[in-house]
Amino acid sequence: MERLIGVDIGGTRTRVGAVWEGQILARRTFPTRGLVEVKEAVAEVLREVGWERPDAIGVGAPAPMDMRQGLILNAPNLPHWNGVNVVDGLKEAFHCPVFLGNDANCAAVGELVYGWKAKDFLYVTWSTGIGGGVVSGGRVIWGVTGQAGEIGHIPLRPEGPRCRCGKKGCLEAIAGGAALSDRALERLGERLSAAELVEQARKGKPIPLALIDEACQAMGQALAIVAELLEPEMIIFGGGLTNSWDFLGPKVVEAMRAMSRLRPRVELTRLGDDVGLLGAAALPFHFPEL
Amino acid sequence: MERLIGVDIGGTRTRVGAVWEGQILARRTFPTRGLVEVKEAVAEVLREVGWERPDAIGVGAPAPMDMRQGLILNAPNLPHWNGVNVVDGLKEAFHCPVFLGNDANCAAVGELVYGWKAKDFLYVTWSTGIGGGVVSGGRVIWGVTGQAGEIGHIPLRPEGPRCRCGKKGCLEAIAGGAALSDRALERLGERLSAAELVEQARKGKPIPLALIDEACQAMGQALAIVAELLEPEMIIFGGGLTNSWDFLGPKVVEAMRAMSRLRPRVELTRLGDDVGLLGAAALPFHFPEL
Repeated sequence: MERLIGVDIGGTRTRVGAVWEGQILARRTFPTRGLVEVKEAVAEVLREVGWERPDAIGVGAPAPMDMRQGLILNAPNLPHWNGVNVVDGLKEAFHCPVFLGNDANCAAVGELVYGWKAKDFLYVTWSTGIGGGVVSGGRVIWGVTGQAGEIGHIPLRPEGPRCRCGKKGCLEAIAGGAALSDRALERLGERLSAAELVEQARKGKPIPLALIDEACQAMGQALAIVAELLEPEMIIFGGGLTNSWDFLGPKVVEAMRAMSRLRPRVELTRLGDDVGLLGAAALPFHFPEL
Repeated sequence: MERLIGVDIGGTRTRVGAVWEGQILARRTFPTRGLVEVKEAVAEVLREVGWERPDAIGVGAPAPMDMRQGLILNAPNLPHWNGVNVVDGLKEAFHCPVFLGNDANCAAVGELVYGWKAKDFLYVTWSTGIGGGVVSGGRVIWGVTGQAGEIGHIPLRPEGPRCRCGKKGCLEAIAGGAALSDRALERLGERLSAAELVEQARKGKPIPLALIDEACQAMGQALAIVAELLEPEMIIFGGGLTNSWDFLGPKVVEAMRAMSRLRPRVELTRLGDDVGLLGAAALPFHFPEL
């Protein structure tokens, strides 16, 4: 398999690319809508690189899904995709194998195939929400139906704040960008983005600093839990909040080290904003038997 | 490989058995001492079953170890084994491949090969301490140097009680048998075993009941964390505290379900007290490349 198409469906943007040996030869980025727009973009990049037919298409999305059936399920952030069988839709249009996976698991595949190429690692997307993917012994941990890797929803504070998943005290409800923004509104009376909150914390403002410290403690605790449980070689971060990594990273690593006897390296993704797209393209190499 | 020897070195007892297709054909159980006693027991069971030479020997021990070198390291509970290269010692005596693994990981191998035979599960030893082993996609998660699976040392309460590993608020420091016994001494002024504490809790005595409920909450939280992270099909329990499973099990499962969207089955080991011995014997089938 050489001529691969990656489709990274995000809450805001969709990225489509033609990938050959880890290089993106042609790409389209556009506001996320539905299957029609993705088909158009795939056709466009195929024309641009002069491939008649791709060898495979991989799709990543941030939604609950049925990987076996290729179905995107009740996706609150992706209204045009609710109940869509993206695998059947693209197979029909492009006559090649199509694979669907959770976006954070796709990112882990991207790091495995094209990025750090470690064999034992946790990938963490730290953004509005928090997602994850686990690789062990060079294989992705998919879990029994493909839902593994949900580090954002591990329960850290059973009596903590309500998470949008319905549970309480998930990592995401403490350290996710949306949760930080909610906390800012409650505590400061103004809605700040997570990035703005970080800027205020950098200036030493007490409430923003306390919120950011709490988030980094929770993230460090989650990494320490994964370290004890899986003994990864590395932990790799991507996502919007890593733009403030110079400030957040040392706090997270310090918290992790205080809570685990193990010392995985902590690094940023080597694939930047393309980690999801490249991971989706590489999904055919690591698709599970479920 | 058909003629296997399993060696299960416990803090109190050592079990040695000759295993053929999952059946223990001959066995010895004796108070744990050192390498000399293990060699004698292996020679005895070999004579009893009439094997000149085993195809392989697998050894499980509850200590920090160097799996690559076959070395048992600073084992506080195993003074005769401190720094002993058990792999070299047994290879020399019996002229066959020898494998060393953590006891809880061995138990997971035992369930995989001879027990429930699930492909995605967490094995938990709930005893004086708490150990674990993770199997995903039919393969044991060893981690980068073979130290994975330490569910007993995931940090649940960063400000919680000191654990014997040196950290604070590990699952083992809240729910392990030794920790429960320590808590009983602090809160009731008498040293009770974990089993005795459970009996008092059954009778509805308030402090024992509160301590047991807290332990079950912590265990349930740990299982919920593993469920979100790895999406196992099953969670399998063994170890001394499972003798009170009728009382503890429902509390643990209820706590897990309150904290995770996923619903792994929770079961007891199918191999009883032999899970460690059978798992050690099966270690050659699942030994990692580290």
